[in-house]
Amino acid sequence: MEVEAFLNSSKLLQHWPSCLVGLLLVLVIKYIVRKRKDSSKQDGTVRDEDVATEFEEVADDDLQPALEEKPHVQFVPGQTLNPKGAQRFYELVCGRRSIRSFSALPKPSLSVIEECIRAAGTAPSGAHTEPWTFCVVEESGVKQSVRWIVEHEEQINYNKRMHPQWVTDLRPLQTSHVKPYLTDAPYLILIFKQTYGTTKEGRRKTHYYNEISTSISAGILLCALQAAGLSSLVTTPLNCGPALRELLQRPENEKLLILLAVGYPSDDCKVPDLERKRLDEIMVKY
Amino acid sequence: MEVEAFLNSSKLLQHWPSCLVGLLLVLVIKYIVRKRKDSSKQDGTVRDEDVATEFEEVADDDLQPALEEKPHVQFVPGQTLNPKGAQRFYELVCGRRSIRSFSALPKPSLSVIEECIRAAGTAPSGAHTEPWTFCVVEESGVKQSVRWIVEHEEQINYNKRMHPQWVTDLRPLQTSHVKPYLTDAPYLILIFKQTYGTTKEGRRKTHYYNEISTSISAGILLCALQAAGLSSLVTTPLNCGPALRELLQRPENEKLLILLAVGYPSDDCKVPDLERKRLDEIMVKY
Repeated sequence: MEVEAFLNSSKLLQHWPSCLVGLLLVLVIKYIVRKRKDSSKQDGTVRDEDVATEFEEVADDDLQPALEEKPHVQFVPGQTLNPKGAQRFYELVCGRRSIRSFSALPKPSLSVIEECIRAAGTAPSGAHTEPWTFCVVEESGVKQSVRWIVEHEEQINYNKRMHPQWVTDLRPLQTSHVKPYLTDAPYLILIFKQTYGTTKEGRRKTHYYNEISTSISAGILLCALQAAGLSSLVTTPLNCGPALRELLQRPENEKLLILLAVGYPSDDCKVPDLERKRLDEIMVKY
Repeated sequence: MEVEAFLNSSKLLQHWPSCLVGLLLVLVIKYIVRKRKDSSKQDGTVRDEDVATEFEEVADDDLQPALEEKPHVQFVPGQTLNPKGAQRFYELVCGRRSIRSFSALPKPSLSVIEECIRAAGTAPSGAHTEPWTFCVVEESGVKQSVRWIVEHEEQINYNKRMHPQWVTDLRPLQTSHVKPYLTDAPYLILIFKQTYGTTKEGRRKTHYYNEISTSISAGILLCALQAAGLSSLVTTPLNCGPALRELLQRPENEKLLILLAVGYPSDDCKVPDLERKRLDEIMVKY
């Protein structure tokens, strides 16, 4: 009877079915909203993850393109028919290997690195947004800080974050969380993708397909370094982006995509005894 | 009174508070499970989206690397010091432009295209997984089907899926959903990223960073085509992947990343009057 008296005394408990119905309704509505969001992500405006979908609200009449609208011009091919060109180029790049043992000397001239980055900057990009920043680290203190950040995170990666199969798959490459090349290599190039930009008028500019564009540009950079006779190592250090962005004081719209070590190989530089796939394993004709 | 009689006659209605409580519990549990999943995605094992996290359940002792474990070998640089190399390479690639008007003749030899893809296949990749397939389309019927699929989807993209700002940003490039280059260009190269693979023993093989690796390889391909004197257009047709994958009968693990049109420019080929960013706009020294 005491319980009944208590129940009768509390308005909340007296009306608990109504409270339940209310709560239930809130949850159901939340659930439906989330479902709709998910399905619009899949079928709606934009499915590709690499396209930022945040646009400022502007009336359609006020829309301005990020690029200036000018008449198109006659295309002048920079390169004429070169039947031997493809073969020579293959001979150049087929000698490229990722190396992990760099020599501090001779130190390549910064102007060579600059020329290579100039080449990388010729990459195509979504709507010509050129969404890349190349941070060239030459100063040994900064290289030491980069190494500290990467080794710290990589230790956690190898011990905790990476699946044991992943660590096993890396065993033939003899990698570990210790990265001497980050201080040995004369240059580090940290390639940031710009997830968005700003127009001259200060409006937010969407950088379409910024990851693909920046990666293509990295591919061109690798070729340029190879043409200059330099070696490199492409790395994508897991979870190091935010700390490295802070170290290099890069703005919020930039995200680390690739960390490249660049220089000449040490005399005793060894590489994994790998084979590449044959042409018929990577190409299909139609 | 009739309503009351009806209420009393239905067991479900009589016990509706219990039913509600049950339903509520199910929803709350579902909500908690989802929350936990989301947070483990954010802070847990792997944060990077590009790393597939699906691993087969194998006891740690049974883990085998996807690559064979062999002693490393001495690195022989394919390229010696070449102080003029970077500059010459820049001169080569700075002439590259994306063109949208191709000439059907002269038709480049397939062997040149093959040599270029061979070069693309030298790209570095996560744990040397080489996660790429290059589909070379030469047959005009297949090109026509590709064009049909792309134009159909692009019409929906331009009209519905793309934000008006996006369509506006493309206006200076004078693009539309009509893509004559897809049938005019002597070759189309559809570059697929392989999201996973299979080991020789038939186990599932994770392709780490497959999108970045394949995009880097596309960058090398662009350089090879330029070295051969060929022009190209890089496109990333939105929402066309599944239909094109089906057309080319590519397996489930492959996803379309880039569709490249390749050939020689038509005589009256025009290009947007664009400028590239200066070196000091894309490079920062530390």
